[in-house]
Amino acid sequence: METLGHLINGQMLVEGTRRQDVFNPATGAVSKQLALASRETVEQAIAAAHEAFPAWRDTPPIKRARIMFRFKELLEQNADKIAALIGEEHGKIAHDALGELQRGIENVEYACGAPELLKGEHSRNVGPNIDSWSEFQPLGVVAGITPFNFPVMVPLWMFPMALVCGNCFVLKPSERDPSSTLFIAQLLQEAGLPDGVMSVVNGDKEAVDTLLHDERVQAVSFVGSTPIAEYIYSTATANGKRCQALGGAKNHAIVMPDADMDNAVNQLLGAAFGSSGERCMALSVAVAVGDAAADALVGKMSAAMAGLKVGACTDSSNDFGPVITRQHQEKVLGYINSAEAQGASVVVDGRQVSVPGHENGFFVGGTLIDHVTPEMVSYQEEIFGPVLQVVRVQTMQQAMELINAHEYGNGTCIFTRDGEAARYFSTHIQVGMVGINVPLPVPVAYHSFGGWKRSLFGDLHAYGPDAVRFYTRRKTITQRWPSAGVREGVEFSMPTLK
Amino acid sequence: METLGHLINGQMLVEGTRRQDVFNPATGAVSKQLALASRETVEQAIAAAHEAFPAWRDTPPIKRARIMFRFKELLEQNADKIAALIGEEHGKIAHDALGELQRGIENVEYACGAPELLKGEHSRNVGPNIDSWSEFQPLGVVAGITPFNFPVMVPLWMFPMALVCGNCFVLKPSERDPSSTLFIAQLLQEAGLPDGVMSVVNGDKEAVDTLLHDERVQAVSFVGSTPIAEYIYSTATANGKRCQALGGAKNHAIVMPDADMDNAVNQLLGAAFGSSGERCMALSVAVAVGDAAADALVGKMSAAMAGLKVGACTDSSNDFGPVITRQHQEKVLGYINSAEAQGASVVVDGRQVSVPGHENGFFVGGTLIDHVTPEMVSYQEEIFGPVLQVVRVQTMQQAMELINAHEYGNGTCIFTRDGEAARYFSTHIQVGMVGINVPLPVPVAYHSFGGWKRSLFGDLHAYGPDAVRFYTRRKTITQRWPSAGVREGVEFSMPTLK
Amino acid sequence: METLGHLINGQMLVEGTRRQDVFNPATGAVSKQLALASRETVEQAIAAAHEAFPAWRDTPPIKRARIMFRFKELLEQNADKIAALIGEEHGKIAHDALGELQRGIENVEYACGAPELLKGEHSRNVGPNIDSWSEFQPLGVVAGITPFNFPVMVPLWMFPMALVCGNCFVLKPSERDPSSTLFIAQLLQEAGLPDGVMSVVNGDKEAVDTLLHDERVQAVSFVGSTPIAEYIYSTATANGKRCQALGGAKNHAIVMPDADMDNAVNQLLGAAFGSSGERCMALSVAVAVGDAAADALVGKMSAAMAGLKVGACTDSSNDFGPVITRQHQEKVLGYINSAEAQGASVVVDGRQVSVPGHENGFFVGGTLIDHVTPEMVSYQEEIFGPVLQVVRVQTMQQAMELINAHEYGNGTCIFTRDGEAARYFSTHIQVGMVGINVPLPVPVAYHSFGGWKRSLFGDLHAYGPDAVRFYTRRKTITQRWPSAGVREGVEFSMPTLK
Amino acid sequence: METLGHLINGQMLVEGTRRQDVFNPATGAVSKQLALASRETVEQAIAAAHEAFPAWRDTPPIKRARIMFRFKELLEQNADKIAALIGEEHGKIAHDALGELQRGIENVEYACGAPELLKGEHSRNVGPNIDSWSEFQPLGVVAGITPFNFPVMVPLWMFPMALVCGNCFVLKPSERDPSSTLFIAQLLQEAGLPDGVMSVVNGDKEAVDTLLHDERVQAVSFVGSTPIAEYIYSTATANGKRCQALGGAKNHAIVMPDADMDNAVNQLLGAAFGSSGERCMALSVAVAVGDAAADALVGKMSAAMAGLKVGACTDSSNDFGPVITRQHQEKVLGYINSAEAQGASVVVDGRQVSVPGHENGFFVGGTLIDHVTPEMVSYQEEIFGPVLQVVRVQTMQQAMELINAHEYGNGTCIFTRDGEAARYFSTHIQVGMVGINVPLPVPVAYHSFGGWKRSLFGDLHAYGPDAVRFYTRRKTITQRWPSAGVREGVEFSMPTLK
Repeated sequence: METLGHLINGQMLVEGTRRQDVFNPATGAVSKQLALASRETVEQAIAAAHEAFPAWRDTPPIKRARIMFRFKELLEQNADKIAALIGEEHGKIAHDALGELQRGIENVEYACGAPELLKGEHSRNVGPNIDSWSEFQPLGVVAGITPFNFPVMVPLWMFPMALVCGNCFVLKPSERDPSSTLFIAQLLQEAGLPDGVMSVVNGDKEAVDTLLHDERVQAVSFVGSTPIAEYIYSTATANGKRCQALGGAKNHAIVMPDADMDNAVNQLLGAAFGSSGERCMALSVAVAVGDAAADALVGKMSAAMAGLKVGACTDSSNDFGPVITRQHQEKVLGYINSAEAQGASVVVDGRQVSVPGHENGFFVGGTLIDHVTPEMVSYQEEIFGPVLQVVRVQTMQQAMELINAHEYGNGTCIFTRDGEAARYFSTHIQVGMVGINVPLPVPVAYHSFGGWKRSLFGDLHAYGPDAVRFYTRRKTITQRWPSAGVREGVEFSMPTLK
Repeated sequence: METLGHLINGQMLVEGTRRQDVFNPATGAVSKQLALASRETVEQAIAAAHEAFPAWRDTPPIKRARIMFRFKELLEQNADKIAALIGEEHGKIAHDALGELQRGIENVEYACGAPELLKGEHSRNVGPNIDSWSEFQPLGVVAGITPFNFPVMVPLWMFPMALVCGNCFVLKPSERDPSSTLFIAQLLQEAGLPDGVMSVVNGDKEAVDTLLHDERVQAVSFVGSTPIAEYIYSTATANGKRCQALGGAKNHAIVMPDADMDNAVNQLLGAAFGSSGERCMALSVAVAVGDAAADALVGKMSAAMAGLKVGACTDSSNDFGPVITRQHQEKVLGYINSAEAQGASVVVDGRQVSVPGHENGFFVGGTLIDHVTPEMVSYQEEIFGPVLQVVRVQTMQQAMELINAHEYGNGTCIFTRDGEAARYFSTHIQVGMVGINVPLPVPVAYHSFGGWKRSLFGDLHAYGPDAVRFYTRRKTITQRWPSAGVREGVEFSMPTLK
Repeated sequence: METLGHLINGQMLVEGTRRQDVFNPATGAVSKQLALASRETVEQAIAAAHEAFPAWRDTPPIKRARIMFRFKELLEQNADKIAALIGEEHGKIAHDALGELQRGIENVEYACGAPELLKGEHSRNVGPNIDSWSEFQPLGVVAGITPFNFPVMVPLWMFPMALVCGNCFVLKPSERDPSSTLFIAQLLQEAGLPDGVMSVVNGDKEAVDTLLHDERVQAVSFVGSTPIAEYIYSTATANGKRCQALGGAKNHAIVMPDADMDNAVNQLLGAAFGSSGERCMALSVAVAVGDAAADALVGKMSAAMAGLKVGACTDSSNDFGPVITRQHQEKVLGYINSAEAQGASVVVDGRQVSVPGHENGFFVGGTLIDHVTPEMVSYQEEIFGPVLQVVRVQTMQQAMELINAHEYGNGTCIFTRDGEAARYFSTHIQVGMVGINVPLPVPVAYHSFGGWKRSLFGDLHAYGPDAVRFYTRRKTITQRWPSAGVREGVEFSMPTLK
Repeated sequence: METLGHLINGQMLVEGTRRQDVFNPATGAVSKQLALASRETVEQAIAAAHEAFPAWRDTPPIKRARIMFRFKELLEQNADKIAALIGEEHGKIAHDALGELQRGIENVEYACGAPELLKGEHSRNVGPNIDSWSEFQPLGVVAGITPFNFPVMVPLWMFPMALVCGNCFVLKPSERDPSSTLFIAQLLQEAGLPDGVMSVVNGDKEAVDTLLHDERVQAVSFVGSTPIAEYIYSTATANGKRCQALGGAKNHAIVMPDADMDNAVNQLLGAAFGSSGERCMALSVAVAVGDAAADALVGKMSAAMAGLKVGACTDSSNDFGPVITRQHQEKVLGYINSAEAQGASVVVDGRQVSVPGHENGFFVGGTLIDHVTPEMVSYQEEIFGPVLQVVRVQTMQQAMELINAHEYGNGTCIFTRDGEAARYFSTHIQVGMVGINVPLPVPVAYHSFGGWKRSLFGDLHAYGPDAVRFYTRRKTITQRWPSAGVREGVEFSMPTLK
């Protein structure tokens, strides 16, 4: 059985004795072994990055960007292989894995614009014969810690921009599905990235804590669950680093009585069940305004769900695959049980799904639960499974209060035709990413991704323009050249650059 | 004796029983009493801000900005009174206090541009008939904690921008010199700011900790010493807030052999001794390259220092005044003593300065110390007094290594005529604010202020463009209007907005 | 009788023998004489500007901006006087004149942000050790030629921004109502503008042609009718100048069946009849979609128009005043007659309006014409009077085709509640300024003003961000400092800054 | 013999009877025939563009950009073939042609960032519940007219950005060397550009005038000589189009006494003689400050020129090739003769150059002329050949006055080590592109290219950020949604969005 290791300083290497199983979630079988990095291994990656930094920092941005142009080509040429690697370890179907890759590539495309994005601000004559300008210089070594659910896309949110800004990068991806991440890192080497500029270390808490405590690491980007995000944010910042930590979500869609209901159902179907609901932007709660809308929604949705096909990634006609682990499967089933126990109606029940030939896979079928209320555990917590819950309210105002009262504020959506409803919603909802008739309002790569409230810790969002600011340090230079004939008087006062 | 209190929800109020003396540092006498806010008082201010927020957030930015236009007028009309209040409690001379005010007003001027600064990014057709845009919405209640050395300027770095962005603000200024801060806050009310939108609470650690732990406070801006900055940053972030914390400094000037030496001496004189060196941008170390440059510098500098006039703020012909407290005076003297004990030469000795009529004032005379080395305590720590130390090196490279090795990275400067030297210095020095023949390279208000290394904790610098980003939350909206005749297919894949 | 002259090089002066009458349009009487500038007088103003330029160009932008801060204060303090001057010569009622002034002041506020707006773009390391940056430097002497209908606002669209960018300005305002323009120019001098930096010359074609042909004039901004705009644009550009020339308009509002009809009528009432329709953004055509909407609109509108009060500017309860001249009054009446003759129905007839005590005033009453068709002269040409014409169509598509087929493309509006209709309209309509339920979509000062098609000639719009670009020249500097030890090889190839 | 035609609507076609010879300038022989487009042929291209526009305009910018990503790949894959095509018809040596291509590709890379570059400005709450935003929409059909000296680079300055902005493009390249231009246009089709979106028409004045007068053409970009630039600018603008027309140059380098003379000579050698001096950024005048600098410069330069190798493009060891035509060769020689006749010293004489095996080629050898004065014809006019003239002055101020007095203001450079000299020069020189120790300060693709004075007619420079603005029209939308319960009062005053 293959043992996966790390990519450090341009070399693939396996080290130490600690190992963890990598599963194929569609079969439940162990497919690979993963070497877990020790502190020393992580420090080796940090050291390589630290050493590579001075030359990389001084490489003109346009040359750094051109590596991304080549990287994009390689990612596109290897798309099917990448999708297969994702499918084998994560379980998502090829069309979905290719979608993930495509969203990732968009971040590479954005990073190709580094020379434009890194422009500083120049002011002639801030005072007589005094000029001043601000530059955005790289930080040094920065780290990324990424989750299992997007083993390609979320790393691509981070390192392309960090690298073109002139930083060196140490990536610790999820230990659940490391192969696709390692593979794209190798493609980046092939695209011409100098050794050491980016390393990938696989590991667990030991690796994470090494990154969080090493003085050479200047900044940490994280995507994962909220408790871990909080830990990362408070630990990294207590060690003086800058940090952006993206956590959990509970994304609500308001379905207004004037919504185009067929369209809403179609949109929700993909947004709730795609990738088995294992997306931080999955739409897991539909808030129907008025019982007529609720009844129509539940009726049409349960009809539509009859056509859902669950199965292994190897069959492209499947709509979605298994969840990531046995434990997670049980957790999702537990939430469904608890909703039922607390009085909700399970309208479509995915608990007993069976996939012929994959009886040991970690499958959960698409599930629709009606009459969910805010007191239920299944409402309060993030399920991260193919479960859509319906909450019924009587007014748009009630729907918005519900959303604003939830601890998370990642994504949300409203289905309506009415301009005023959409504007009022987008202005007053306390959520970072808002869709108007768009159920999964993941910003495009040239905007930035980030939730509000307990869905994100930090000042700056992920990717897009915010990432440029996160991965750079502002330096401001003020310059006056003394002329030979002029001697200025001593200034004891606070100079005001008059 | 007057007891100063707080400005909360538009009202001046004194509360509780805890009091602290406010001194006139030029006489050593207690001039006022200051009420120290209890937790309840601070919470009252937070509550007022929290309540004022919804209406203030929805006030158009141009209307918020117009209050700043009026505030600027009032600050200018009251300039002499503000300078006098600063002088009485801080000790700085009127010309210096007016300079401080002027630099503060520049931040008010910048805040007048809020409608331009708050523009979001709009993208038509991120996908077919899908638009997306990002807005910068206010955070809610934000707090500022400011130091004694700029009781007017540093608060003005923070609240004008925070307010025009739509936030409500709770300011905890220094307890050493609160009068000028309170006064400008009253002027802001007079300019038309609604009650509760900004409050000022005077206090100590209890007030600070209340701000750091209250859930309603979304962000904290701090300026002070590095140990406190670290505490503020780690505590605020551990509580899930965003934070920018500016700390100490040790600003070096490199004096190159080709420098215009008379100009350099003139510039350094003001930069080292102005405001008694109690500026985080004070130039406290001169690094002379070559002994010829060092000898010339020390010779001309000691001659120039003979003309320095130290005294009370009431005499405008004075160059600088006392330091802030008796304790601080003793600390500064201790650093001079230690340098001498560790082998440095005290060339000009300000330890025995006497100001007739102000024998109990906290004065320290301008002091020049030569042959300082990196091992000395006086070199390693921030003195914050009128003490200029000279370090001698043989090459520019050595000078830069010295600076890059220091724990602080706030400001620095080089004196040279050579374009290449200036460029190499500004590119490679690990310091946030760089001067080329400008000894005190405080960025103008439309750039941002921030050091590197242990001089600043956080992602974003103070005032200027970075402040806009710090005081706002990005919200990204993605919008598609369903057309009546079109029904789109279900999308189970990660949508790529093709 | 007072004779008005010019403000040149800081001095008011009357010259030559050519004179023109200035009327009070509410009485029809001549109120002042205006001296018309000869070529020599205009050249005197240009020469003063040319001479003032070097010092003004080198004045730091923040100091230029501070004159605008003071100018804003003076405009606000003198608001009533300015409004009265406008009223006496233009005829508009005080509330409307104050609105005009306020929109003008907003441009002054925007110009206060000059230091931010003038920032250039800085790139470190465009090649190894090569930096490059772009600056926006002033042009030199620029000219503005402005129309009678906004004697204060349109000049304020131009000169505040031109001046803070570092240019000197020669303004030729309308000869119909010069007093308010001259007065605000004097306030600007009072605010601290150095002599010669801005001059005002009153005059006719001789003055215009002098500006268009003088080599020292670098750029021309114009607002007026389309035939003159074309002449200005082709003449100025043939002389090598840059030019932006804003012309006429025919602004349509689409009234959709789902519109909030009472709101639409209220909005249209002001937009069609305010300032007697003498606005290039006046809404002069309502396109009703479906006869039901048309009937409702015409019914409610004619009822609402019964309350319109026409009269002199001295009575603030009037809704609007006279048109600008006897000739223009006759022209407007001629359009109404022609519409009637071509088969349209005059539903509310303002042709016989009589204002007691002002029998010789140039009044036209509010007029509503239904069943107007595209073939009618009154539809094809700009009326510039208090006349609202209703065109009936059956679909939104027809309404949009009508608008897109018209030669003008200044402003337009749609009244609807439907998000999709609004989005489709704003994307596909060939008009520069679009309102969604906003009948007079004049952009705010921090956006830019400009029509499409034959409503604007030039690349860049008026005021806002475009004005910064129009009034500056880009300069790009590329810098490499030779190091002593390095000698680079000869490069015969096109250097690529690798 | 091959006859080259046009690329229209995706098809290569030859039409009509008018033909022109295409020469190989290294042999003097006719190598191809070029069909000259009639008015009808050009109108066919315009019609195709007009028809393709609606679909192309509505294609999401990211999809338009992706065609540029593919185009870059194809240009790189075909680099040698492109360089060979340039060499055969233009005469430049392969290393130089590859440099030209590389600079062109950089503009394609910049165009890949279209989604970022096209972002509009969004303002929430310009008034209560009123939002406003500006978009940059394409113009429609735009035309480019390009010169012989960069048959690949200059077209690439224009069409990639015009296209990603959503415009359709008609290119009329130089009739001297059309093959490489046609070839890259075919590569663009191969990259996926839809038919009709870009066409190439070869031709002469008839083609140009058709483009200048056709109503469907919205804008014209031109690069060529100043007389033609003036004609293009005045004709296009008289027809209501926007236009940017780049003309001739006379680029001076100041050589200061403190310059690194070896470096300066090396740099000047390439900048003066590369591409036979047929570059609008060629450095054709060296202004030496002081006779010592002049003597050193002339001495070292004439020594260095001994090594220059002139010959055919087929030998890569050549430094430069022939000039473009027999007529142009004679014109260049005439300038050298005239300088000599007017009293200048021809230090190195390239008039008698002979290239064995290419006796009929249009060669001129590298020529150095000393003691040139401003009165000489060779100083006043653009030579566009491998001729470097030396002017001697005594002060930097004199050198700058010389440059500022010249009619052209394209590029310039100073060689110095002194920071103040560089700063004073870059601030006060009346030239659009300034080099500090960079002799050919062509801005990188993410800045913009443009001269001042009679070197450019128009507001906006070529490529880079200015190109985005040139190729788009601003549209500003102001939006308010009426709420059901609220009826607003009629507004007759100028609305101020309070």
